[in-house]
Amino acid sequence: MSEILIINGPNLNLLGSRETETYGSETLEELNNNLGELAKTLNLKLKFFQSNSEGDLIDYLHKEAPSSAGIIINPGALTHYSYALRDAIAGIDTETIEVHISNIYAREEFRRHSVIAPVCSGHISGFGFYGYALALSYFADETGKK
Amino acid sequence: MSEILIINGPNLNLLGSRETETYGSETLEELNNNLGELAKTLNLKLKFFQSNSEGDLIDYLHKEAPSSAGIIINPGALTHYSYALRDAIAGIDTETIEVHISNIYAREEFRRHSVIAPVCSGHISGFGFYGYALALSYFADETGKK
Amino acid sequence: MSEILIINGPNLNLLGSRETETYGSETLEELNNNLGELAKTLNLKLKFFQSNSEGDLIDYLHKEAPSSAGIIINPGALTHYSYALRDAIAGIDTETIEVHISNIYAREEFRRHSVIAPVCSGHISGFGFYGYALALSYFADETGKK
Amino acid sequence: MSEILIINGPNLNLLGSRETETYGSETLEELNNNLGELAKTLNLKLKFFQSNSEGDLIDYLHKEAPSSAGIIINPGALTHYSYALRDAIAGIDTETIEVHISNIYAREEFRRHSVIAPVCSGHISGFGFYGYALALSYFADETGKK
Amino acid sequence: MSEILIINGPNLNLLGSRETETYGSETLEELNNNLGELAKTLNLKLKFFQSNSEGDLIDYLHKEAPSSAGIIINPGALTHYSYALRDAIAGIDTETIEVHISNIYAREEFRRHSVIAPVCSGHISGFGFYGYALALSYFADETGKK
Amino acid sequence: MSEILIINGPNLNLLGSRETETYGSETLEELNNNLGELAKTLNLKLKFFQSNSEGDLIDYLHKEAPSSAGIIINPGALTHYSYALRDAIAGIDTETIEVHISNIYAREEFRRHSVIAPVCSGHISGFGFYGYALALSYFADETGKK
Amino acid sequence: MSEILIINGPNLNLLGSRETETYGSETLEELNNNLGELAKTLNLKLKFFQSNSEGDLIDYLHKEAPSSAGIIINPGALTHYSYALRDAIAGIDTETIEVHISNIYAREEFRRHSVIAPVCSGHISGFGFYGYALALSYFADETGKK
Amino acid sequence: MSEILIINGPNLNLLGSRETETYGSETLEELNNNLGELAKTLNLKLKFFQSNSEGDLIDYLHKEAPSSAGIIINPGALTHYSYALRDAIAGIDTETIEVHISNIYAREEFRRHSVIAPVCSGHISGFGFYGYALALSYFADETGKK
Amino acid sequence: MSEILIINGPNLNLLGSRETETYGSETLEELNNNLGELAKTLNLKLKFFQSNSEGDLIDYLHKEAPSSAGIIINPGALTHYSYALRDAIAGIDTETIEVHISNIYAREEFRRHSVIAPVCSGHISGFGFYGYALALSYFADETGKK
Amino acid sequence: MSEILIINGPNLNLLGSRETETYGSETLEELNNNLGELAKTLNLKLKFFQSNSEGDLIDYLHKEAPSSAGIIINPGALTHYSYALRDAIAGIDTETIEVHISNIYAREEFRRHSVIAPVCSGHISGFGFYGYALALSYFADETGKK
Amino acid sequence: MSEILIINGPNLNLLGSRETETYGSETLEELNNNLGELAKTLNLKLKFFQSNSEGDLIDYLHKEAPSSAGIIINPGALTHYSYALRDAIAGIDTETIEVHISNIYAREEFRRHSVIAPVCSGHISGFGFYGYALALSYFADETGKK
Amino acid sequence: MSEILIINGPNLNLLGSRETETYGSETLEELNNNLGELAKTLNLKLKFFQSNSEGDLIDYLHKEAPSSAGIIINPGALTHYSYALRDAIAGIDTETIEVHISNIYAREEFRRHSVIAPVCSGHISGFGFYGYALALSYFADETGKK
Repeated sequence: MSEILIINGPNLNLLGSRETETYGSETLEELNNNLGELAKTLNLKLKFFQSNSEGDLIDYLHKEAPSSAGIIINPGALTHYSYALRDAIAGIDTETIEVHISNIYAREEFRRHSVIAPVCSGHISGFGFYGYALALSYFADETGKK
Repeated sequence: MSEILIINGPNLNLLGSRETETYGSETLEELNNNLGELAKTLNLKLKFFQSNSEGDLIDYLHKEAPSSAGIIINPGALTHYSYALRDAIAGIDTETIEVHISNIYAREEFRRHSVIAPVCSGHISGFGFYGYALALSYFADETGKK
Repeated sequence: MSEILIINGPNLNLLGSRETETYGSETLEELNNNLGELAKTLNLKLKFFQSNSEGDLIDYLHKEAPSSAGIIINPGALTHYSYALRDAIAGIDTETIEVHISNIYAREEFRRHSVIAPVCSGHISGFGFYGYALALSYFADETGKK
Repeated sequence: MSEILIINGPNLNLLGSRETETYGSETLEELNNNLGELAKTLNLKLKFFQSNSEGDLIDYLHKEAPSSAGIIINPGALTHYSYALRDAIAGIDTETIEVHISNIYAREEFRRHSVIAPVCSGHISGFGFYGYALALSYFADETGKK
Repeated sequence: MSEILIINGPNLNLLGSRETETYGSETLEELNNNLGELAKTLNLKLKFFQSNSEGDLIDYLHKEAPSSAGIIINPGALTHYSYALRDAIAGIDTETIEVHISNIYAREEFRRHSVIAPVCSGHISGFGFYGYALALSYFADETGKK
Repeated sequence: MSEILIINGPNLNLLGSRETETYGSETLEELNNNLGELAKTLNLKLKFFQSNSEGDLIDYLHKEAPSSAGIIINPGALTHYSYALRDAIAGIDTETIEVHISNIYAREEFRRHSVIAPVCSGHISGFGFYGYALALSYFADETGKK
Repeated sequence: MSEILIINGPNLNLLGSRETETYGSETLEELNNNLGELAKTLNLKLKFFQSNSEGDLIDYLHKEAPSSAGIIINPGALTHYSYALRDAIAGIDTETIEVHISNIYAREEFRRHSVIAPVCSGHISGFGFYGYALALSYFADETGKK
Repeated sequence: MSEILIINGPNLNLLGSRETETYGSETLEELNNNLGELAKTLNLKLKFFQSNSEGDLIDYLHKEAPSSAGIIINPGALTHYSYALRDAIAGIDTETIEVHISNIYAREEFRRHSVIAPVCSGHISGFGFYGYALALSYFADETGKK
Repeated sequence: MSEILIINGPNLNLLGSRETETYGSETLEELNNNLGELAKTLNLKLKFFQSNSEGDLIDYLHKEAPSSAGIIINPGALTHYSYALRDAIAGIDTETIEVHISNIYAREEFRRHSVIAPVCSGHISGFGFYGYALALSYFADETGKK
Repeated sequence: MSEILIINGPNLNLLGSRETETYGSETLEELNNNLGELAKTLNLKLKFFQSNSEGDLIDYLHKEAPSSAGIIINPGALTHYSYALRDAIAGIDTETIEVHISNIYAREEFRRHSVIAPVCSGHISGFGFYGYALALSYFADETGKK
Repeated sequence: MSEILIINGPNLNLLGSRETETYGSETLEELNNNLGELAKTLNLKLKFFQSNSEGDLIDYLHKEAPSSAGIIINPGALTHYSYALRDAIAGIDTETIEVHISNIYAREEFRRHSVIAPVCSGHISGFGFYGYALALSYFADETGKK
Repeated sequence: MSEILIINGPNLNLLGSRETETYGSETLEELNNNLGELAKTLNLKLKFFQSNSEGDLIDYLHKEAPSSAGIIINPGALTHYSYALRDAIAGIDTETIEVHISNIYAREEFRRHSVIAPVCSGHISGFGFYGYALALSYFADETGKK
């Protein structure tokens, strides 16, 4: 069974408590549980990781990417400046999807630019938690073809 | 049964023949047929429109949006400068998803900026034709909730 | 009796239903009727045109401008990028006034720049529908002098 | 009878003698007289002020704005940098119209940007002296409604 | 006999009447007649199209390009922002030459940048009507080689 | 007893009446009284000055700075463009603290840049009236050391 | 007794040894001791944290902010690019003050821009170690009011 | 005997005491006395004016320029933003020379741009007090020719 | 018989050996021979010059331009920064055509801007060696008219 | 024997497996071994460190720099934004050389700017692994002189 | 007797024939003769040099500067980009004055920026040929003092 | 024996006399002698060239590069604008190393950008004269491998 990594960056551990008008009131745990439920129906195995540390996110990608079939990553605010995270994604062979909960194009100017997007294969933003589910069904479809 | 508009902008009528290394070899007709098949399974009705004319796209949105439950739009190159199309989308009440076939963030600089994105609720790029399907399943989920 | 063209660009056909907090609740028809009433008192004849198509607006200007004594144009969002419309106005001899319903300087950044303004003789924004009336009384005054 | 302030900024005391190809050959006194004549027909009382000093313009606004029904201001070149004048206008409750004699969009680049415009309710440029008259008839219309 | 498309964009229908100090006093009809005469001597067949509508220009390119041996296009002011027209040219296999009557580099700043140029094989500006003739002789030379 | 200058620039005379959601409802007089009370406890003498005129502010600085032990200045909107005020501060030997009532970094873009800050020794913003008190206690501490 | 967090970012552990002409010769330990002394007189409890790691700073904020009455943070060079730290501060409810030892406006260009400032309530720079004391007395005043 | 105006802007009254490493140790009075001596030998009459107020400088120009044969102005820091002063100079017929004591091109970035220069006939910087003398000898030469 | 100057700038002596995928495999000598052949049929005399030195190119223009009927210049990389060459062309009366072998708009960003173009009457790029021939036939046509 | 630190930043642990067309197929271990061999011949002792964490890199610099005679650092993508790493290097007294394996000036635009370079004494890029060896021989030369 | 170098850059050999509306109708020879006359009265010896070659200008400066008492240079268009000429001037000890015949601030945008100015001691523009005379009298004054 | 070119651009002939605090007190002759000594030990032959003329540098590269095994070039200030020199290097097959004596990233802003770097294989700056030696040992290593 193919394994998909669900990676969340800085401050996403606060989901459900932080800026709920923007990010909704569900927690990261609930998000992960929901995705886990969905994954079962899609015949995918999930591995979850969240960190507020750029370095830990890169370490995790280096360690886990080679054995995974796909990566879904919400880099949080690292999206806008972490060229180190970008290089980590560019340096692995596993297909990676960038997901944002809010519509980053309808917020502050600095959120409009993703340094991560050019090295991902797909980009989803604005669908709330459902964005992760969309990415997951893409991988289900892709891995189903193989 | 909820109706979803599938709107494609300039040059997308050439899908399958134009720049196939970027856009794939399937035609717009095939895309629409596939989406039609998917829609049936999702209990949605689709209406298709493609035009190379900014004005016709706006006219169509004005006419059809009020009676539709959702809009999936790939504005083609209008994405990057058509503030008139943006205003049309901002002026209607129907939820709208922006879809791009290629990863617009991995191409020419001018393609990185969407003037449409801030007035859509969601943004999907880089999934090929599958991006439309993702948007469609989002609307299925949304309308299913109501 | 001098003829004045009242030209409205993209999305202005939705006046009264779209973004009413910005544009008010009167419709384009009501606007035109009011202007028609005013024109009678000013001894002017009006011709109305609205289109969402840049090309049709240019065609109309080419056809009608030579026989008109003045033009009042609200180019909608074309204001911000349509150099083709700008060239059309620059290429005709009839004096042209640019009108905006809202104060375009108090909204999004992109609305602050008009590519049309340098080729019009006057610019009015922020007066709601009354802006058209102001432009009309200017033409009444001007044509009255001749 | 409602009182309207007619405020002119730096160098507008030279009207009629300075750069007449741009500003015409009438003087500020003639402008004010004409506006006074017009005001009578509109049942409005005018108060005139001109100064070359940013500070004096702000002082005048602070003192006179509370008892006036509207303000027509041509800030001259302060338009392009006087955030202090902007704050003065933003800080008063009286509706304010910005007027420019010439079409500021058809001149030097620096004249295209008004730091005053976002805090005024309306903006008129390019109509020569007639721009003040247009603003005045707007206030006549507005105050007539009350 | 090879067929060459002569395509003119917005406002070029006004040639001979509009801004004659910039564009000369000959009309588009005269231009086309002259080119037709020249084409005969070069053993080329011409097809003429002019439109003020971006959408119609794209439609025409889609329809006629596949059966033509070369395209000479003067996109008018669309040159400076129509990424949709650019994509249309990029999406066809027929070699395309961009022609401008005036020297676009000696006019307003915005005219210096062509979004069309990177997808054409050649660029000619500043030769008046003669620029079209130069492009035509290039195609005569090219098609003569085949 | 050391003397500290409390200088307020344009529009700060309107404190308590202007934009109270940003600047609070206390008046400048109340601010000065409070500071006076505080100064007594800190063994400092205060001198107050407010002006809407850049020139008067510079004159005052030239005249009073040499005999004062410290300057607390809120330059109002002059903060963002008055290089003349900057030069005045740079040209005197008395240590100067820049104070802003609101958090200027959380407002309009133009308020984020202070041309005054590089020539002051300290910068305080966002503490409301309390910012002046903080600056005062700094001077109490400094002068106490001497 | 209210608890205030004193958080210092990258390189501030080197205070007293690094670039002493800019940052003075006192160490971080001395700073913290002095603040501790001051806090006792103000009836506040302090908790100290310093880290060179963006992730650890965010973790600490998440863990300690909810139970603290105020935060004083000197983000070091993270000030200029750490949108992740910004989001952490924006996501907590505790009032936060940004402090810089040197006057960041009088140094290299890149130090003039703080991405942290817009989400803090107050900003203090240029007072050396005394800046922390000023922030502390603000919190003493604030918590004293409650 | 021709009259020349010697006008100095903000902070130049502090010459000799302010930033003497940049501006030298002579006072404005000494400068004016020296120029007066020189003027006698050149058969010119001088009138001196210094103000820290933009408005007063404009008033003075309006009043005195018409009867003078030439103007030598050092606008101080107004050089970099006072479009109002620029308009005042542009609006008078008297030839005007801009003088700066220091080399403004070898200092802070903001000092490199003069908004005044385009409307003066000549520009002199970097010669210390001698720059005024150079300008004076130019006028002597010019008026001698008439 | 009219004389036309064929001037090539830096590195064009390497044609045929340098970057042949961009510039083709023909040498400058071959280019010149071909142009010489063409010139005979057009009744024009050619003079050839190539130099890698900006100064020599300017010297040559000064010396030869007055007696020539037209100039065809490919300034090589000087195109992008040599304002001295620009001034040389602007300072002579002979009509000048700028030619580039490759399409400079489809290469590196810096190649898109020509400082020479505004002072030439025509601009040709992207036709390979044929671009010189086009320019030559233009001059044949022009001189034929006289 | 002098000790030199060899520090590698984010993603350089992947050398030999990641983007080998850019970075070559040797691993970091091989690089370090080779450098170790070279160091012996140069009478230098090496200490190796690699981390994907900005914070750990700073910690390491703080701890090890004081006892080392030189630092060779390849900051990976932190080069382009880590002002915290820059401050760490600026804050230590040990001479530091910045090394990049690839020619960072021939890649993406963002890689052209190093925020680290201004605080290092030397900068080497584009020599592959050999760049480290060059830096090492520099330190051998330097320490040999002492 | 002190020797002053009079150096003129590209295209200034064409004075009197090129763009006479900007540069006047006198030739460089006449300019030099006039300056020679003036120099005699000032007890200075002049050496003249003009070249269209950046390299020759630098060579000349290297060779002649050490034995001269002052340099007056009009770098022509090299003013705007020749950092090599700038370095040459910065590298010599002789005081250098930059002179421009026209007011470079009232012409094209690119002429407003001098890369030479920061390394000269004085800057004169807009006085026509008289600018050189002003610079010469400065040196007469300076050398007279020694 | 492989031949390496040592090429120095504008003003480097002044080494040892010009700005010695930046460039050291050794002369170019001493540099070349030292390099010659080193080359012998590395079994390389050197050819030296210095010129202040962009054109001569290009000529030299064209003539000598084909028979040399490597090029070490310090382009002096041409680094920052000479696209012609860049094209010369790009057009030759010999590997080229760019060397700068000072750390160009720690000086004026304009020195941070090298238009030459993208077409060289390696870049060394900040090592003083030793940078040339480093480049030389690189070529010794490279040619030794062949």
